Amino acid sequence: MSMEVTNNYIAIKSHIDGNPKESDFEIKSDPLVLSVEPNSNEIIVKNLYVSIDPYQLNRMKSFSSSQKASSYAVALAPGQVIDAYGVGKVVASGNPEFEKGDLVVGLITWGEYSVLKGEYMLRKLDPLGFPLSYHVGMLGFSGLTAYAGFFEICKPKKGENVFVSAACGSVGNLVGQFAKLFGCHVVGCAGSKKKVAFLKEKLGFHDAFNYKEETDLKATLKRYFPDGIDIYFDNVGAEMLEAAVANMKIFGRVAVCGVISEYTDAGKRAAPDMMDVMYKRITIRGFLVGDHFNIHSDFISTTVDHLQTGNIQVIEDISTGLESIPLAFIGLFRGDNIGKKMVKIADE
Amino acid sequence: MSMEVTNNYIAIKSHIDGNPKESDFEIKSDPLVLSVEPNSNEIIVKNLYVSIDPYQLNRMKSFSSSQKASSYAVALAPGQVIDAYGVGKVVASGNPEFEKGDLVVGLITWGEYSVLKGEYMLRKLDPLGFPLSYHVGMLGFSGLTAYAGFFEICKPKKGENVFVSAACGSVGNLVGQFAKLFGCHVVGCAGSKKKVAFLKEKLGFHDAFNYKEETDLKATLKRYFPDGIDIYFDNVGAEMLEAAVANMKIFGRVAVCGVISEYTDAGKRAAPDMMDVMYKRITIRGFLVGDHFNIHSDFISTTVDHLQTGNIQVIEDISTGLESIPLAFIGLFRGDNIGKKMVKIADE
Repeated sequence: MSMEVTNNYIAIKSHIDGNPKESDFEIKSDPLVLSVEPNSNEIIVKNLYVSIDPYQLNRMKSFSSSQKASSYAVALAPGQVIDAYGVGKVVASGNPEFEKGDLVVGLITWGEYSVLKGEYMLRKLDPLGFPLSYHVGMLGFSGLTAYAGFFEICKPKKGENVFVSAACGSVGNLVGQFAKLFGCHVVGCAGSKKKVAFLKEKLGFHDAFNYKEETDLKATLKRYFPDGIDIYFDNVGAEMLEAAVANMKIFGRVAVCGVISEYTDAGKRAAPDMMDVMYKRITIRGFLVGDHFNIHSDFISTTVDHLQTGNIQVIEDISTGLESIPLAFIGLFRGDNIGKKMVKIADE
Repeated sequence: MSMEVTNNYIAIKSHIDGNPKESDFEIKSDPLVLSVEPNSNEIIVKNLYVSIDPYQLNRMKSFSSSQKASSYAVALAPGQVIDAYGVGKVVASGNPEFEKGDLVVGLITWGEYSVLKGEYMLRKLDPLGFPLSYHVGMLGFSGLTAYAGFFEICKPKKGENVFVSAACGSVGNLVGQFAKLFGCHVVGCAGSKKKVAFLKEKLGFHDAFNYKEETDLKATLKRYFPDGIDIYFDNVGAEMLEAAVANMKIFGRVAVCGVISEYTDAGKRAAPDMMDVMYKRITIRGFLVGDHFNIHSDFISTTVDHLQTGNIQVIEDISTGLESIPLAFIGLFRGDNIGKKMVKIADE
């Protein structure tokens, strides 16, 4: 006889336009029997930690505003379970590759349990002696995004000048740390005095500034990079991208990792000067982490080394309880978090 | 005893803002003795054909508006001799590598004679049985720009969809021809019915359209590329770049070869959607032909093969006489030319 539980999960009440707010979300509940048919391929996972990421907002928009993204990140319907990266524990498995009790990492849900059928993206997790939360951020998608984006897309050389926006974010803080360890000169920007101090004093960025205190971003970047920028790791788009392109050196590279300015304002655009792009032979390249799984094992071994020698710091911002997901998510767009935002849903 | 001649040349009267006009230019004259000191390294070249290219306008602007370009393309002062790509014949040489009577190609001047001292960019020309004009366009910088831009920057695959703007221009028409020969599906845009017919009927573009007849460029490109664009070879910037990015397929590539929309209007900008760039993993890359001399011999041998088999057409638009240079140049920005614009200054 199988146990029946109530599975609580977060859903949107309607499509979201602009900044998300608490009333856009609701907690829904379904009864769930914690068993599966043998060899059904179905798996039920008890969710432990889930990732909270800005890109999810693009999936919550109405079809018309998110259709461009719909082939790459499946649009969400109101009331629907929301899939998200995270760590959990198998409670029932119809897939011979997984057993009850296995720790797993991959696409689970913003819920207490994940019911995975058909094709799902999940693998067994060996925590390697690290806290489970590390496997959501540092050793998860955020870490791989930073690692692949910096090394594969930006193709850095030692001594180059690197600028990172949203530098206290889940990806930005790691890009800065990877860049510094690699021997680059790293400057970050963030949205508060506290974050700027954190970047300089805790993470060892060579310099940092609060973009909210600046009125002329081109002049600001000229001040921080008198010799120009070789690499801009862009998480924000808009004016910051324009200012970075204006301050780039020849053969400069821009990795477009995120465009948070557009996520909440569909009309917002960056208009970098294409004369700069041409004369300075700049490359602007968008990327998604999903194209870079081929370097996953390289990423893990390098990062684990850095963690064991204490060369890299893990910056996490963890809320607790399923019901904290909406506010955790909303906070991303207010700049509330420092480091990787996630929600702990249950103890192991 | 050496002959003394009058060397007439074209100069700007003052810096240019916006579209160039006849009154921006003047013909100046200097007396010139057609001899040089032995081993002085100086060379005097009688100019035969000179290239007329849009990028020269960026060198004619006031310092404040062209400073960004000044490190890459030296700014021109009013009254100064204007250097330009072209073909000529050596009339006096203090450089043991060149002899009187040698045909040469490289940076000469918008004048009757070029007096080259210090460092100059010149090489002996073997016409390979082709008209000298071919070595200004098809087998010169325009050809190498098209070849390097398409093969090195765009990295095409057979069967891909290629869009070329300013497709009747010196570079655009060759990109289209190279792309078709390579096995891509090619659509071009230009600014008149006559040019569109020329692209389809004479150059064998799979399709072409007159952008001046279109009101919604995104919808236009959707119509010509229902499955999306893999490669956009951009000569114009602005709205066309925005529309191309909106219609790109995943892993699409944009080569930024020219930004003619900005040359005459410094405030003009392209604002491509960076959400598209990210989700579709688009690469936008600027380039200059000067970085690609390493493939020059490959370019020449491939192109000579195509010329000999009649697979590629040489489209030239030649004016005659030094005094025709200003109107030839001004015409570039009115879209007067079909194919490579140049001026024949003298007979061999």
